[in-house]
Amino acid sequence: MKTLRQDQLRAQSRQIEAALEAAVSGAALSAPPRLGAALRDAVFPGGARVRARLCLAVAAACGDDCPRASTAAAVAIELLHCGSLVHDDLPCFDNAALRRGKPTVHVAHGEPLAVLAGDALIVLAMETLVRGTAQVPHRLPSVLATICAATGMPHGIIAGQAWESEKLVALSEYHRAKTAALFVAATVAGALTAGASATRWGGLGERLGEAYQVADDLRDVAQDASAMGKPAGQDAALGRPSAAAEMGPRRALAHFESLVQAATDAIPDCNGAEHLRLLIRMEALRLVPPEMARELSRRAA
Amino acid sequence: MKTLRQDQLRAQSRQIEAALEAAVSGAALSAPPRLGAALRDAVFPGGARVRARLCLAVAAACGDDCPRASTAAAVAIELLHCGSLVHDDLPCFDNAALRRGKPTVHVAHGEPLAVLAGDALIVLAMETLVRGTAQVPHRLPSVLATICAATGMPHGIIAGQAWESEKLVALSEYHRAKTAALFVAATVAGALTAGASATRWGGLGERLGEAYQVADDLRDVAQDASAMGKPAGQDAALGRPSAAAEMGPRRALAHFESLVQAATDAIPDCNGAEHLRLLIRMEALRLVPPEMARELSRRAA
Repeated sequence: MKTLRQDQLRAQSRQIEAALEAAVSGAALSAPPRLGAALRDAVFPGGARVRARLCLAVAAACGDDCPRASTAAAVAIELLHCGSLVHDDLPCFDNAALRRGKPTVHVAHGEPLAVLAGDALIVLAMETLVRGTAQVPHRLPSVLATICAATGMPHGIIAGQAWESEKLVALSEYHRAKTAALFVAATVAGALTAGASATRWGGLGERLGEAYQVADDLRDVAQDASAMGKPAGQDAALGRPSAAAEMGPRRALAHFESLVQAATDAIPDCNGAEHLRLLIRMEALRLVPPEMARELSRRAA
Repeated sequence: MKTLRQDQLRAQSRQIEAALEAAVSGAALSAPPRLGAALRDAVFPGGARVRARLCLAVAAACGDDCPRASTAAAVAIELLHCGSLVHDDLPCFDNAALRRGKPTVHVAHGEPLAVLAGDALIVLAMETLVRGTAQVPHRLPSVLATICAATGMPHGIIAGQAWESEKLVALSEYHRAKTAALFVAATVAGALTAGASATRWGGLGERLGEAYQVADDLRDVAQDASAMGKPAGQDAALGRPSAAAEMGPRRALAHFESLVQAATDAIPDCNGAEHLRLLIRMEALRLVPPEMARELSRRAA
């Protein structure tokens, strides 16, 4: 059973990378070559593709009757995530030199192409959705609306980043927009592209988004730059709100654990619910620093 | 007849401004306040809304059976245009201090909010399209694909801007992507949102986009900054390709005239064709510097 799941996960990863490759190659063909190169560096090599895999996992749990559509939604969400990282790394924001262990897009290609690559990724995400739903066009409006809401104003990742420019920020609103929004879109779009009702799927994304944010804070304080592929201690250096800093690593880890539990509890009844619960528990362990993952496994055993 | 047309034009302008206002207000409500303010400054006061009016004029010529959809397409195209101007004005591109006679968005609100406002405008454009086509959802895929193609890679306005980062640039490909693409989207989306076939409408947008670019070059060499609301002589200062500089103002004006003629010739048979031809000739005169418009009128008389 365990082997089978890991096979499935590897196949899913290959499916996501191939679909991302197809989207990026299609856009770059006959485009200005330096913009094409910047786009490629923004998307490859990727991170864990957590949001894309979550989207496909929910679609699978809902019966996934149109894999082209669910894959398109997963790819769109991943492209939007990659685009937001390119802009977040710009000198006027984090001024980051490294991302995933490589020079950031503006360091490698200059600021103009980094701005344009981020813009192009937003558009490419939408185009990918249109193409991917060609067989089920009646699903496009709701999927597109879901993904736009998670990206734009007032509550998407762009709004989340803009809260960093405000003097008064509610930590929960900031994290919900900056991180949870795209996780919610991943679960809801996964259900919608599979033709399922979306109303009950938001809770899972919301909880996982919160858990991911706490895990990110934990990694930021616990790990060194080489393990993260980007500078550590950035939240403190940039004065950003951080759960790990606010409540301390121990309590933050317990909070993470309860959020993952709440996430699996929020999975609606469906054929693939049990499989999805297992998958989420397994994936959650990969989000926190290794010694914390070991502690969580010990507690669960 | 003349009075009626001007009444219609004023009513159309009010319709576009009201729809833009509704879109921006909706996005800004409960968003980070400074991002909301940056978005508003990016969109208001606007320019001539040439692309939006073209989109509505084509929709009207095609019978416009769903004004909500055609207005949404017009607004989406205008939002994308405004967003591209915000990013084009950034220090890493034109480093412009003025736009439409006001401080540019990054001067007024800082670079981070200018980057985010440009991003948010792309997303808001797509959301506006989804909402506006709620009564005719089967028209969304083609309209969205049209507008995305005009915006992204390889041939949209983002790609057009990226050609400025390349050493080897074909003038025609640069102008087609940077300017004509959104004019083509305006005509094609106008037809599509009215339920008409789009295949015959691209030529009008293509010619008008070229004409607009030539007019822009003419204004850049002929007018002072106060009349343009932005610095003049920018093309020469930034070493950008310019028809007026390449062929001289006289020949560039004759080229403009022939492009407007080609544009009106390209209007397909439809109920509103004659009205649209008149409209385009009238609007074309507003694009070039006043003394050139007088010369064109004399020649036509």
